Amino acid sequence: MVRCAIFAIGSELLEGSIVDTNSAWLGSRLTKAGFNVEQVRLIPDNREMIVSIFRQALNEYDCVLTTGGLGPTFDDLTAETVAEAVGVSAVLNETAKEHMINRLKNRNVTIKESHYRQAMLPEGCMLFPNERGTALGFGVEKNGNVIISMPGVPYETYLMFDEHIMPYLRSRFEMKERHSVDIRIGGLPESDVDDVLREFGFPEGLECIINVAKGEILVKLRGFDVELINEYAGRVRGRFEKNFIGFGTDGIAAVLLRTLREKGMTLSVAESCTGGLIGKELTDISGSSDVFMGGIISYSNDAKIRLLRVPENIIVNHGAVSEECARAMAIGAANQLRTTASVAVTGVAGPNGGTAEKPVGTVCIAWCVEKTVISKKFDFPGDREAIRIRTMKAALIGLNDLLKKGSL
Amino acid sequence: MVRCAIFAIGSELLEGSIVDTNSAWLGSRLTKAGFNVEQVRLIPDNREMIVSIFRQALNEYDCVLTTGGLGPTFDDLTAETVAEAVGVSAVLNETAKEHMINRLKNRNVTIKESHYRQAMLPEGCMLFPNERGTALGFGVEKNGNVIISMPGVPYETYLMFDEHIMPYLRSRFEMKERHSVDIRIGGLPESDVDDVLREFGFPEGLECIINVAKGEILVKLRGFDVELINEYAGRVRGRFEKNFIGFGTDGIAAVLLRTLREKGMTLSVAESCTGGLIGKELTDISGSSDVFMGGIISYSNDAKIRLLRVPENIIVNHGAVSEECARAMAIGAANQLRTTASVAVTGVAGPNGGTAEKPVGTVCIAWCVEKTVISKKFDFPGDREAIRIRTMKAALIGLNDLLKKGSL
Repeated sequence: MVRCAIFAIGSELLEGSIVDTNSAWLGSRLTKAGFNVEQVRLIPDNREMIVSIFRQALNEYDCVLTTGGLGPTFDDLTAETVAEAVGVSAVLNETAKEHMINRLKNRNVTIKESHYRQAMLPEGCMLFPNERGTALGFGVEKNGNVIISMPGVPYETYLMFDEHIMPYLRSRFEMKERHSVDIRIGGLPESDVDDVLREFGFPEGLECIINVAKGEILVKLRGFDVELINEYAGRVRGRFEKNFIGFGTDGIAAVLLRTLREKGMTLSVAESCTGGLIGKELTDISGSSDVFMGGIISYSNDAKIRLLRVPENIIVNHGAVSEECARAMAIGAANQLRTTASVAVTGVAGPNGGTAEKPVGTVCIAWCVEKTVISKKFDFPGDREAIRIRTMKAALIGLNDLLKKGSL
Repeated sequence: MVRCAIFAIGSELLEGSIVDTNSAWLGSRLTKAGFNVEQVRLIPDNREMIVSIFRQALNEYDCVLTTGGLGPTFDDLTAETVAEAVGVSAVLNETAKEHMINRLKNRNVTIKESHYRQAMLPEGCMLFPNERGTALGFGVEKNGNVIISMPGVPYETYLMFDEHIMPYLRSRFEMKERHSVDIRIGGLPESDVDDVLREFGFPEGLECIINVAKGEILVKLRGFDVELINEYAGRVRGRFEKNFIGFGTDGIAAVLLRTLREKGMTLSVAESCTGGLIGKELTDISGSSDVFMGGIISYSNDAKIRLLRVPENIIVNHGAVSEECARAMAIGAANQLRTTASVAVTGVAGPNGGTAEKPVGTVCIAWCVEKTVISKKFDFPGDREAIRIRTMKAALIGLNDLLKKGSL
């Protein structure tokens, strides 16, 4: 068992100006590789505090990872505190200096004295390349344990970790890879999923973890025996057949795009209360353009009428938030964008705009598949953001269900 | 000085299945109220570890806040570990039990024996209402310090904290509110902003913090003297007049909507590479519908030609990623949605689709204001997500500049 600690450095993280996402990303990578992440901690830019935490961690953990604090400003304390904790000096590292100068030249930034601060690294440290930024990663050993420091910019750290640090860790520690299967389930409350899983009685060495994200439940099966995991993953899927979205960490957007691709279909969207969120979610995925043709954000009634050809009397008689309107929007999107499938949403995301009859959270969704239209009314809990995310997920899950099973 | 620690409990957080956003939210609230957040730590669902960390924190900090681990399953250890750390028993709390039964009844969930586990709280604890979920918050004292536990669901915790816990903390600790002004700056590298701010020589008692988020720089001035802060905020703004986006934590979308509203203008969007992200960002803001009419997600060329009336020869001669195409898209959006302003984006978000002439990151943006069209070509760094976010921000910043200053 290789024990790890992850430290994210920077007062802005503790003050909540920035959410630390690096630690979760690293935690996920390390866990998968078989490491045990036992501590994640955010540390303010306080020299004594950082040194004392590093020292303690180097006694306790096989592997300590840090992000942040590698910049050129006086707030950036990671290199000197690592040096102090390990008991070496921070010295000008020529390789790090060269790298920094080259990067800054390419960006046409004038090099200043203060920049050199960034190349002061613990004496004798190993270096990890940074293809995306000025600060190299570095690692030092103490008591047979290792501390490795990376930049705070996720885009830089992710590549550095995958390409250089993980290979180093794998060569240093003999790891047995942890296997896991994620099973995504939609449209059921957590307690129902929990009840079913309790009956399973998973064997020793197979962990089952349930996570809930807005509108979706993620069941993770995890362990070192890949065959056992796959066997149980199949059994769990079987028990939730009707609500099964997919395996893997793919969200419903990726699953739906795959379904459409398999069937040779194309997709358009008509979005009112989500205002572009469904399109954004689909186009987050590279390569979506072969299936997703586009959409119409019909935030105003006028846009619904003119761009989507929703008959005005539908809006007058039923309101813009109605299944009738959603159905007309779905037909309009499919016609205007000439797609074989479409999805349309209209609702009250709040916090304002709710009425007794149509309170905040009322959302109508319609799906059009080969000119057949189906619609459904939802009553979503949560705030504006939660309602919009639930609407997006329900829209995509609904279409995938229609295409896979022919019904909702 | 009131010292605080925040603990987020749950193995899923350390394993990176879920990103802990509660701690940043609480850290921001506490910092603003004048507290010093000195530790944020994620703790796995391990009884001994939790108890030992709670015990140590209750010796060291005036106020310890925890989120997560209040559910009914065997993984949920917060109540019993708080009890153990403080040295009291966990007992069935009748108020908590009543609350839970009522909430579950409203949701038509059958109440099971396991649910009662959730109402086992430290003996003699104070309670904090949860208007949005089944688990009440609770607090206990030890050594004159206090530990308060909240649910892990952000939607529940945010309301509980603002309505019940913060008022309690304010009454318990005599706090001097920390004032801060956020100054948002766009279109400048961090090092340039840093250089200018170094010259300022901020007085004692006024902190200046620079944070960078994709495409925007946030300068935070902070301290207890509100007049001093406002004076310096005005001076900082003056030095960055050309790149000043706005004060406050409002993003550029909120600033732009306000500018449009002041001028009595309406907005539409035409999105290719962002696929709905610009519309999503605008409609994240409640009340955007008085200004934002909608948009067209023209992911395919066909959609650009038919829905936005982009002349086909523009796409043939210049390509879909060209200033010419962006300009035609902007005109098309304004015409189709009958708005006085519009913005259009088309680009290569990657990772595929780049060419030697138009590599990944090439983005063309056009703005149409009262029938006058201006366009600009960008070369954005970063991965797909970063390029899309930078495109969105540049599109909104550009329009706001055009409206405020008449030029980019």
